[in-house]
Amino acid sequence: MGAGKHTMRAEAQIRPLIEAWAKAVRAQDIDGIMANHARDILLFDVPPPVQLRGADAYRKSWHRFFEWFQGSGVFGIGELKVNAGDDVAFCHGLIRCGGTETNGQKVELTVRLTVGLRRIDGQWMVMHEHHSEPSQDPTRS
Amino acid sequence: MGAGKHTMRAEAQIRPLIEAWAKAVRAQDIDGIMANHARDILLFDVPPPVQLRGADAYRKSWHRFFEWFQGSGVFGIGELKVNAGDDVAFCHGLIRCGGTETNGQKVELTVRLTVGLRRIDGQWMVMHEHHSEPSQDPTRS
Repeated sequence: MGAGKHTMRAEAQIRPLIEAWAKAVRAQDIDGIMANHARDILLFDVPPPVQLRGADAYRKSWHRFFEWFQGSGVFGIGELKVNAGDDVAFCHGLIRCGGTETNGQKVELTVRLTVGLRRIDGQWMVMHEHHSEPSQDPTRS
Repeated sequence: MGAGKHTMRAEAQIRPLIEAWAKAVRAQDIDGIMANHARDILLFDVPPPVQLRGADAYRKSWHRFFEWFQGSGVFGIGELKVNAGDDVAFCHGLIRCGGTETNGQKVELTVRLTVGLRRIDGQWMVMHEHHSEPSQDPTRS
């Protein structure tokens, strides 16, 4: 495998892109969140439905998230690992995020994050995100 | 972007790899399941824990799955989309899988699948898998 010069440069571009995305979430800056996202992004989100397709649906998912987030400021990515080629990349990490449940209880969760990217006209764009928690169904855990 | 010859060839290699993996799951063929997986694979699985690292932990996750699967033969991948560069690729799809809950009820589930791959010594290897269901916590859905 070996991390060549191109790969190291790509990883050095993608890591700040992901960190800027998380910073925009903390600031509830929806245009910042969307800054590097493809129009036909496919999202597997934490709550239902199974999938959401397209930038408009992606944008709406964040408005719903903000209702839970309530400006807690807690949305940080740990264990971020970037795998980048010349034009395709994926990365994964764990998001620590804080919000308030509908019963008023403040909670912090760990969410698994996988992101798929393509370099389009020289710019890395997010094509796919997968956010999840482990299933809590006791009959399957 | 544009799908060049290299990209099309890579996608034509990865799609059968994923289909062969699903076929090995249906056959409960653990060596077949592991055939193209890196030793340090990172798995985000449906049940807890948050993550599992390494081929041994990955292997054990399938033994647990087979207890639920009970040879139903239902493990098929739909909507598979492959994004491949020369040496890095990711893909996503929806798995329809059937099993039996601990209360004896037979069920079929849709699981979201994201896979990250690297081409190592000419062979595509799975570095990362993310399997999940949407969260069913009614306070967050």
